[in-house]
Amino acid sequence: MTTPSDDPLPSWRPGAAKHALLDFLVAARTVPVAERVAMFDNDGTLWCEKPQYLQLLFMVDQLRQAVAADPTLAAQPEFRALIEHDHAAQAELGLERIAMALLRLTIGIGPAEFDDRVRGFVAAAVDPVPLRRLRYQPMLELIDALRAESFSVFIVTGGGTEFVRAISQDFYGVAPESVVGTLVSYDFTRDSVGVPQLVRSAEMVGTANEGEAKVVNIQRELGRRPIFAAGNTAGDREMLEYALASEGPSMALLVDHDDADREYAYEPEAVTVDFDGSFTAFARDSGWTVASIRNDWEQVFAE
Amino acid sequence: MTTPSDDPLPSWRPGAAKHALLDFLVAARTVPVAERVAMFDNDGTLWCEKPQYLQLLFMVDQLRQAVAADPTLAAQPEFRALIEHDHAAQAELGLERIAMALLRLTIGIGPAEFDDRVRGFVAAAVDPVPLRRLRYQPMLELIDALRAESFSVFIVTGGGTEFVRAISQDFYGVAPESVVGTLVSYDFTRDSVGVPQLVRSAEMVGTANEGEAKVVNIQRELGRRPIFAAGNTAGDREMLEYALASEGPSMALLVDHDDADREYAYEPEAVTVDFDGSFTAFARDSGWTVASIRNDWEQVFAE
Repeated sequence: MTTPSDDPLPSWRPGAAKHALLDFLVAARTVPVAERVAMFDNDGTLWCEKPQYLQLLFMVDQLRQAVAADPTLAAQPEFRALIEHDHAAQAELGLERIAMALLRLTIGIGPAEFDDRVRGFVAAAVDPVPLRRLRYQPMLELIDALRAESFSVFIVTGGGTEFVRAISQDFYGVAPESVVGTLVSYDFTRDSVGVPQLVRSAEMVGTANEGEAKVVNIQRELGRRPIFAAGNTAGDREMLEYALASEGPSMALLVDHDDADREYAYEPEAVTVDFDGSFTAFARDSGWTVASIRNDWEQVFAE
Repeated sequence: MTTPSDDPLPSWRPGAAKHALLDFLVAARTVPVAERVAMFDNDGTLWCEKPQYLQLLFMVDQLRQAVAADPTLAAQPEFRALIEHDHAAQAELGLERIAMALLRLTIGIGPAEFDDRVRGFVAAAVDPVPLRRLRYQPMLELIDALRAESFSVFIVTGGGTEFVRAISQDFYGVAPESVVGTLVSYDFTRDSVGVPQLVRSAEMVGTANEGEAKVVNIQRELGRRPIFAAGNTAGDREMLEYALASEGPSMALLVDHDDADREYAYEPEAVTVDFDGSFTAFARDSGWTVASIRNDWEQVFAE
């Protein structure tokens, strides 16, 4: 019989999702350690993505500092829409155009400087709570439980790779090389005395890391195949299917944001595929395990 | 005083190279653990690259199997030159054209099948010694010594990423995600019942992982900066310079193949840059440590 102290997932309420997770953790003991590979989406899976992507808050913070140094920047339509909280203008311009404009603010800096900026922002951001408290406690427990079964844990995010790498060790115990995301291109240059350095460009490498690209980039950058994958949007669909199609024990987990009281209630946006019915219905039809925040999580956020 | 059993580098003879390595290992104790990052080229740095790249032997083995199944393949000029050991024809065609032709032999297979083929070849290849005995004992000791000082160890190779990943854990204790090399593109597809899978194409992703590309790909795939790097050709130049330019303790190591009796004696090919003088002279001028196989290594190959 399981005593409370034996429970590796204390923030998960008894139910089908917890049951499936505990079963999988045991079943995976038959899998060679090198193949015990778990991959997690980040935004909306490991931490909250509403009301805005946290990376967007960082970029807006960068914008505030840039405008303080050069007020003429505020005249650019993408920046004006952000500064004036003009949601209609933001929607009209679109997230991609705004994100690309924000990216231009970090052209020319090196990887270490970018890391410092992210970490400085994360350390200072308390609105209304520190960013680290926006991590989901049940998912942190799940990461620990997988590691206790000798899993290697990776983050496969649609967000910017460097942004997530700057915090992944501290927030999730995931090393930078174990993060796959949307890449910004760095150029190799030499300074005036010939010392090599990398400087950020404003160009993306390939496409955003969503949908099929997640699976292709997993192979390119990691060379591992997940037998467990967790996500929360249609952009995670292919990764979850890829994990579930592994030989032997496998599992796909969808986090369902259905708790308007403690977090947010929203249907995931269909990034790559249109679904007739709800995405959670599609998930259940596909054999995925659905984690309802409202029903399955006793505690939502990390302490 | 150091007793023999305290020596982490017993296959290194006393001399300037060993002295510099031991000094660096101690100096790196002042560096935060997250920044203790060591990166190694593979061919000619961790294992022997003469008379041919070992990956080429694997591809020729694949060719033999393909020709056995379809004898008409032997008529292709790239394949005929290999099968008939026609070195003049091989030189005229060039390694790149031959390699691209060989790559087409693995179109359509998945990552797991490719791994199996590499591992099968490596397990069977005994000509004249098993491939694992072509690893350099002093470099294996150096990897262990770096890990004993809490370094993370990566391989950054000009060779095919998947080939090296298939053996990196077994040969060097380096996980697949810690290998950066020349990437072959995989396509995301679905089988007849919709199950997602990855299949090899014959296209490279970007350019070969040599020279400046090594530094750019280190940032893209790992997001770490080396403070120690080892290589043996001009294709490693930028990576070694990048490591040496780190703040704090840093080191660049060049393996000099100058031992015709126990291994091979050859000047490295200048892959990206032409040097007027010898490459080892350039290395010394650049502040790199040169490891002479003839003088600095008591034992060359692993047991």
